[in-house]
Amino acid sequence: MERFEVTYRIFADDQSDAESRAANIALEDTVEIPRDVVPAGYVEDVVLGRVESVVPEDEGTWLGRIGYHIDAVGRELPQFLNVVLGNASILHGVKAVALTPNAEVLDRFPGAQYGVEGLRKLTGRATGGYVCPVIKPQGSSSETLARLCYLTARAGADIVKEDHGLSNQDAAPFRERVKLAAEAVARANVERATEGDTAQSLYFPSIGGHGDEVRELAMYAQDAGASGILLIPGLFGFDAMNRLAQDPDFTLPIMAHPSHLGPYVLSPEAGYAHGMLFGTLMRLAGADISVFPNHGGRFGFSLAECEEIVEACRGDGPGLPILPSPGGGMSLDRLPDMMQLYGEDCVYLLGGSLLRYGDWIGDAIREMRTALDAT
Amino acid sequence: MERFEVTYRIFADDQSDAESRAANIALEDTVEIPRDVVPAGYVEDVVLGRVESVVPEDEGTWLGRIGYHIDAVGRELPQFLNVVLGNASILHGVKAVALTPNAEVLDRFPGAQYGVEGLRKLTGRATGGYVCPVIKPQGSSSETLARLCYLTARAGADIVKEDHGLSNQDAAPFRERVKLAAEAVARANVERATEGDTAQSLYFPSIGGHGDEVRELAMYAQDAGASGILLIPGLFGFDAMNRLAQDPDFTLPIMAHPSHLGPYVLSPEAGYAHGMLFGTLMRLAGADISVFPNHGGRFGFSLAECEEIVEACRGDGPGLPILPSPGGGMSLDRLPDMMQLYGEDCVYLLGGSLLRYGDWIGDAIREMRTALDAT
Repeated sequence: MERFEVTYRIFADDQSDAESRAANIALEDTVEIPRDVVPAGYVEDVVLGRVESVVPEDEGTWLGRIGYHIDAVGRELPQFLNVVLGNASILHGVKAVALTPNAEVLDRFPGAQYGVEGLRKLTGRATGGYVCPVIKPQGSSSETLARLCYLTARAGADIVKEDHGLSNQDAAPFRERVKLAAEAVARANVERATEGDTAQSLYFPSIGGHGDEVRELAMYAQDAGASGILLIPGLFGFDAMNRLAQDPDFTLPIMAHPSHLGPYVLSPEAGYAHGMLFGTLMRLAGADISVFPNHGGRFGFSLAECEEIVEACRGDGPGLPILPSPGGGMSLDRLPDMMQLYGEDCVYLLGGSLLRYGDWIGDAIREMRTALDAT
Repeated sequence: MERFEVTYRIFADDQSDAESRAANIALEDTVEIPRDVVPAGYVEDVVLGRVESVVPEDEGTWLGRIGYHIDAVGRELPQFLNVVLGNASILHGVKAVALTPNAEVLDRFPGAQYGVEGLRKLTGRATGGYVCPVIKPQGSSSETLARLCYLTARAGADIVKEDHGLSNQDAAPFRERVKLAAEAVARANVERATEGDTAQSLYFPSIGGHGDEVRELAMYAQDAGASGILLIPGLFGFDAMNRLAQDPDFTLPIMAHPSHLGPYVLSPEAGYAHGMLFGTLMRLAGADISVFPNHGGRFGFSLAECEEIVEACRGDGPGLPILPSPGGGMSLDRLPDMMQLYGEDCVYLLGGSLLRYGDWIGDAIREMRTALDAT
């Protein structure tokens, strides 16, 4: 393919209006000048977006497929997103619903380091869903949080993930917290190994700090013994994630958190389709695990939207298939149903409700394991 | 004020539902655990968001004011936004409409370096609206773009701004382009000064590259003779802008571009109010000039939304008042009307339609100047 393609859902009055709107998107996201002044030659033939097709979709909507040349992008992810949905993100009635990368896009943005298969090796869990407690709340001391890490790891958690609200606050500064928590999880892993457990807990601290410190903090976490990191692309940028994923010195898997990204999916008439944002773009930008709110929890994603995300995470490219990670107010009694929907290549989050167990939080982890394995 | 406050528009069924939803936002954006397991003491008393009031606003909407303690934030802007609208950005029917910072927020995020008054000094234009041509299209060579910079600067442009789609593509790599364009604008300024012109053109290149290169590229631009920079917080993160604004070695004004931010304002039921995003948050994060699409152009912002942005840019804090910069398909014949609406403390963008003038682009600049001064 000479061009990569983005498919947009376009709200329009009729075929002619839809075609006109598609042509505007192609202009807006590349040259951003009126069509009649686009210079002939290279700019018109290569740089300008090209409308490939505009077909009716549903009542009042059309699907417009626009081809973009990699020359409009260059090599950096911010400009890639600028082409995919930069100024067009401000147009009413335009939603990016699918991406078809070409070889040049895949070369520049090769995706996840580990993905579904890699996580099987890292955890040592050959089959079954992953048990992932979320360590919180913020305001707790580093010692308190490290203790929760130890207890959940000791009880067999696959991934011990920090809450995305654990940043670099004074109650538990990033470096202090990560050091203590990594040690706690390592201790639990040693004890489990002594008992013959071949699986181990991976500890994913939440990167908290300034945007220009992401690499430094991620490398600190790696050196301190963390086995992955949690990053919020909606606050630090998708490029921050991609840079880590492609950094030869950074070798840990990355879990992406959806905080601050809600408006990109909530309106049917703006932003990205659920699968494109939480599946396709997360993959392209190097996430190994993509967190999103499960249907029926505190957030309002529908079953169909969650299915779309899962398909985009685990289906055909870009890059390796990655693990979906539904959360957002889940409890143990919902796990069997979730397992039916999401299957075993999935990271099952359990957050606030774990705290009801107090010192017996390990029981919750074991119950989660049992519930997942029983399905 | 012990706490800073965020006001949310909450879509609810009745007062009781609205209060319940407000309490959920306060939980969601801080501790993210069920209310009954919030630990007593520091976490409950300080870290947990506090609902200050919930009052009816309109048919089906309430305004919920929530106080947050700076301890939930720490010192970094990503976590500040995580508290203001992190997970709550994923809730249906919640829109952040206003921010009331307290002393601690203002201390950590002091805002713009120059603002409205500073730009008067930098440009040497004591009164009148600012003429701001946008240099494009991408795909042009560095030489072609530098020539447009020279011609518009020579004709009296106040700010020569690069298109936000000029990134780091091969046609005009960032460093090559910025060097040539800065030289071109400097030459025009020397010629104008020789003729007795006391005003000068400021050149604002568009920062294009990786997120972790922003400071390096901005410092390169400064050293090469640029007089400001254009940055896209929707792609590079608001913190990238804030870090530059607070960097003692970086002394240039910053223009913020709205690319990729559309979904945060387009839906009435999600994201931020127009004024909060393009005024308040831009100010807090250190922008001196905030670009947004004018009503009646290619984008669908209403007159009221544009007025709200202007008020948020130039009204009471946070930080210095900054310059609104309406654009998006403007032409010379609309300038008198725009001047009535936006007044003289405003950066008037003129983009693609300038190219119709070809080699006589300088005439367009002079016509802009005349149109603005005539009002």
